[in-house]
Amino acid sequence: MAVYTEVGDEALTAFVAEYELGQMLSCKGIAEGVENSNFLVRAERGEFILTIYEKRVKPADLPFFLGLLLHLAQRGIPCPLPLTGRDGAALRQLMRKPAAMFTFLDGVSLRRPGPQHVAEVGRALARLHLAGADFALRRPNDLSVDGWRRLLADTLARADEVRPGLAAELSAEFDGLAARWPRELPVGVIHADLFPDNVFFLGDRLSGLIDFYFACNDWLAYDLAVCLNAWCFEREGEFNITKARRLVAGYVEVRPLTAQEIAQMPILARGAALRFLLTRLYDWLNQVDGALVKPKDPLEYLTRLRFHRRAGGPGAYGIG
Amino acid sequence: MAVYTEVGDEALTAFVAEYELGQMLSCKGIAEGVENSNFLVRAERGEFILTIYEKRVKPADLPFFLGLLLHLAQRGIPCPLPLTGRDGAALRQLMRKPAAMFTFLDGVSLRRPGPQHVAEVGRALARLHLAGADFALRRPNDLSVDGWRRLLADTLARADEVRPGLAAELSAEFDGLAARWPRELPVGVIHADLFPDNVFFLGDRLSGLIDFYFACNDWLAYDLAVCLNAWCFEREGEFNITKARRLVAGYVEVRPLTAQEIAQMPILARGAALRFLLTRLYDWLNQVDGALVKPKDPLEYLTRLRFHRRAGGPGAYGIG
Repeated sequence: MAVYTEVGDEALTAFVAEYELGQMLSCKGIAEGVENSNFLVRAERGEFILTIYEKRVKPADLPFFLGLLLHLAQRGIPCPLPLTGRDGAALRQLMRKPAAMFTFLDGVSLRRPGPQHVAEVGRALARLHLAGADFALRRPNDLSVDGWRRLLADTLARADEVRPGLAAELSAEFDGLAARWPRELPVGVIHADLFPDNVFFLGDRLSGLIDFYFACNDWLAYDLAVCLNAWCFEREGEFNITKARRLVAGYVEVRPLTAQEIAQMPILARGAALRFLLTRLYDWLNQVDGALVKPKDPLEYLTRLRFHRRAGGPGAYGIG
Repeated sequence: MAVYTEVGDEALTAFVAEYELGQMLSCKGIAEGVENSNFLVRAERGEFILTIYEKRVKPADLPFFLGLLLHLAQRGIPCPLPLTGRDGAALRQLMRKPAAMFTFLDGVSLRRPGPQHVAEVGRALARLHLAGADFALRRPNDLSVDGWRRLLADTLARADEVRPGLAAELSAEFDGLAARWPRELPVGVIHADLFPDNVFFLGDRLSGLIDFYFACNDWLAYDLAVCLNAWCFEREGEFNITKARRLVAGYVEVRPLTAQEIAQMPILARGAALRFLLTRLYDWLNQVDGALVKPKDPLEYLTRLRFHRRAGGPGAYGIG
């Protein structure tokens, strides 16, 4: 939610001239995307998003991300399409940082999505999984079990500052999950961060999916488990089983789940909750003075983690 | 340069529905305007700016600001035009704060304007002064001599933290200026903050003037003196007399200066430099932890103030 890099008008005009957009009419830094600087560019040919990649995105991962967006957009997924410049390149430099230009997606993200929106998210997620099936590049999920182990090591000593007993609970949870994490499920390209902030709607219709900078190859059902965490809990931490049913029903309309995927849903949901709990905890303990972004409360995910731990089976999510 | 207020999609949709804009297509918080929260709203009828007024703008001043923008836009000044809703009101509330919707202005602000741009600024400033002549509301300039006195009282004790000797220099400067400040010059509505950030260009053509939240009634020539400070110094503090000549020449093409206004230009320019030096010094000494905006260096204006103090007469600016 911030603009980190300031861009002078001359550098900007030169950059935009690399694309066939006509004259640039305006450019505004926008408060979107936690990891990168984003600008809404208006030009004679329409609206576009200019992204400058800041240090949290590894340059080596950019061909995967940009290639994936191109691949998905060509298959009808409503995601930002990277534009290629006059030289045929989508990835170039601005202010000595990697940068790219994308199509603009209409729509607004919802603060309080209803069950009908969650069903749309399920359908869109399944379509994304099918469309990604023949994408050639690979990127491991660096926020799966090995990533949790690293985050745990980096946060354990101070976890009890956030809540007494948290360190012990996280350790036990990690050990349990590492031992029981699925070894064989259908794999593919997942979004891995499909939160309400990253989904646009026009009325009840889903109009855009954004922020693919955690996308990677992992269990497809894990992506659905992320969405169970992201879309199916209410403000005070209550699980909304109606939304969970609609999410999964929307998903299976497009891509049926296997029996294994259904059976593993509680453990996948626990893993997803641990992943967001650990990254939020890390950011909470490592706040940067004067940072533009206020870290999110990690303990929201402790509540969710405990819910999933208590879930007896997929029936707790209204599945199967 | 920040978005302070977060707005939920439901409140936003309800707010936008008050205007005849068609369906809202998107809304992005934009990094523009230091004092307020600004959003770029795309709707079926086009692009608009939604402004939520934060605490630095006094609600009692809003009828002056909105009325002025309406008055100026109706007279062809390229400034944001406040939209009136279905109820005929331009000023309403969003998230319990005053808010208004404006037309969107194309163009980009220039980091390194050339003499041709500065001439455009001179012409636009004079047009603004003529267009404002019959505006009925009044707002005193609270950042003129009395305002400087208050700012000086609030900063004097700590001014030497920024630079040894600054307190004594500011005191002497204030006393000299207060004694010699003009008592009788042509008055009218002035912008009072027409910096490069607040002027948009499309190529060499000036396309927009924004951020009228310091506008007030004061000597018209003081506004030109603000622009001498804002547009005619280079990065290392050198005065660019070519730009000054073009600024003034552009201005007098539209509105000739009186002999008195020309004669008083050095003292007006000193006053303008002191005004920005004092407000920057105040912000520098009162930095808010975790603030989104980094204060600007006050000492840039000490250099400018000293330049004006040494100016023998209007000839130093290439005028008269």
